[in-house]
Amino acid sequence: MYIGIDIGGTGIKGILADKEGRILSSGKTPTPSGAAKIDQSIISLVEALASAAGTDKSGISAIGIGAAGSIDRKRGVTISSANIPCWKNYPLASNIEKISGIKTFLENDATVACAGFWWEEEGKKFKNFVMVTLGTGIGGGAVIDGKLFTGQNGNSLEIGHMTIDINGEECRCGNRGCLEKYASATALVNYTASNLKKYRNSSLHKRIEKEKLSAKIICEEAVKNDELAVKSVEYISLHLAAGIVNIINIFNPEAVVLGGGLSQAHRLIIPAVKKIVSERAHKGMKEKVKIIAVKNQSIIPALGAAKIAMDRMKHIL
Amino acid sequence: MYIGIDIGGTGIKGILADKEGRILSSGKTPTPSGAAKIDQSIISLVEALASAAGTDKSGISAIGIGAAGSIDRKRGVTISSANIPCWKNYPLASNIEKISGIKTFLENDATVACAGFWWEEEGKKFKNFVMVTLGTGIGGGAVIDGKLFTGQNGNSLEIGHMTIDINGEECRCGNRGCLEKYASATALVNYTASNLKKYRNSSLHKRIEKEKLSAKIICEEAVKNDELAVKSVEYISLHLAAGIVNIINIFNPEAVVLGGGLSQAHRLIIPAVKKIVSERAHKGMKEKVKIIAVKNQSIIPALGAAKIAMDRMKHIL
Repeated sequence: MYIGIDIGGTGIKGILADKEGRILSSGKTPTPSGAAKIDQSIISLVEALASAAGTDKSGISAIGIGAAGSIDRKRGVTISSANIPCWKNYPLASNIEKISGIKTFLENDATVACAGFWWEEEGKKFKNFVMVTLGTGIGGGAVIDGKLFTGQNGNSLEIGHMTIDINGEECRCGNRGCLEKYASATALVNYTASNLKKYRNSSLHKRIEKEKLSAKIICEEAVKNDELAVKSVEYISLHLAAGIVNIINIFNPEAVVLGGGLSQAHRLIIPAVKKIVSERAHKGMKEKVKIIAVKNQSIIPALGAAKIAMDRMKHIL
Repeated sequence: MYIGIDIGGTGIKGILADKEGRILSSGKTPTPSGAAKIDQSIISLVEALASAAGTDKSGISAIGIGAAGSIDRKRGVTISSANIPCWKNYPLASNIEKISGIKTFLENDATVACAGFWWEEEGKKFKNFVMVTLGTGIGGGAVIDGKLFTGQNGNSLEIGHMTIDINGEECRCGNRGCLEKYASATALVNYTASNLKKYRNSSLHKRIEKEKLSAKIICEEAVKNDELAVKSVEYISLHLAAGIVNIINIFNPEAVVLGGGLSQAHRLIIPAVKKIVSERAHKGMKEKVKIIAVKNQSIIPALGAAKIAMDRMKHIL
């Protein structure tokens, strides 16, 4: 049995799976602040997952962890993370391994999402696809010629930091006009917020009396045809499409798969993306490429982390 | 022995190499107009290469062809080509195979350049690199985890058609703000031509009395510090750098390698590109990445085509 852990800025999710990908137990816990506290939360979650499945640590072959940010997959170190700033060259995998006594592997959060989709969902059909995770930022993962692509040290496919507007504004990463400035959940909220005054009749005004403006609220109102919400979703879809056209022209994949929280709004986003792909992507590449969303967005990254632990134990990856 | 053929819009180059990559004979011939005439020119070149090496067709195990444009590598078909418009779903490989009686394989021109650099030059050291071919247009190839990357049908890495300016002008490919509109040899000539009037003292005015404005002339005058020529090379270098930053952030490669005719101006281009990469590419990726140019630009693609013929005969690729 293998444990997969998916660490985000707000929560830590975990699953215990067998080698066929059946989920035997699952759980989640908030992300505490402080690197040592995160270690401890992971350990507690590992114990709870084992216990819920009627086993203990001895029944677990390996732990796989997916973490947002810049990592060194070989050394298992989190180099830096915008969402978890306490990680600075932090030896996460070796700490968890020492405390738990279980072999532990680290990968990028979008890579584990990619692995999960490949193992359990429609991904099984593909030998070449690119995963685009839409959340606070935008990440990416890929399967190339039937192999998970990690790059030199696990940080490949930072597609959120691909310039789509060379004259655009500077990004926190140092680059300019980055895709995630125009197409992430953050971009959706920022664009909407900056246009609220212009749209006095928008139903969003009433919504934000009670709760903070969020991508979720905007998508909900877009479904109900609120003009500003629709326009905002269109804005990010148009920009996301430009990024996806680049990905298609570069990777010539069988599919581009949307993951991450915002992918749950795929019914709003994908039709707009498909239209632009059909107009702009390269002939010979655009005709057959599928643009789809992951189904079990909340569980897929942790499941992929478990799969990666399994593959790395077997030295497949 | 293997034959490698590199077909461009103006010329066809060929080499005959042994399985260690030693070149036993080489030659070139102009690209005629008409698909059947191109077939015949290739056949004549094959015969001349064999004869020059003191052998005949029976000594040749396979032919590899690199062709500019959209191809289907499995079927050996040139689907379309901006530089060789007579090719429309043309069964190039099977035609050559039928006429010559020698097994023939087709790949994209940037892919063969990538294979040549990997086989014979500094590329030997790398398991992960991206080739950027700078010519009339911009193409790309890559080695990923020690394997040549071709995509689904041989058309991956159309990095010339990556949007770097979402508000930019439309490209002939249907996309907008494509890299090759700002960073190819064509872009260099166009930018210079549109600024000639503003720079009355430019040495380029005298040069173009005798010959047509070309990337070669502009680079020659840039070396001599002509203000417009320098400004023009800076313009394309800045835009090329934005494309290369995207490639680094996506592929996390060991090296980005410039090939194609314009790469011969690497002493002018690479320092400007390196400066921008150091400012804008992702931390953890930019520190170690090498940015270099191929040395034997004129022979590397044909040599790579021979290598691909060898690997595809052995079913390695």
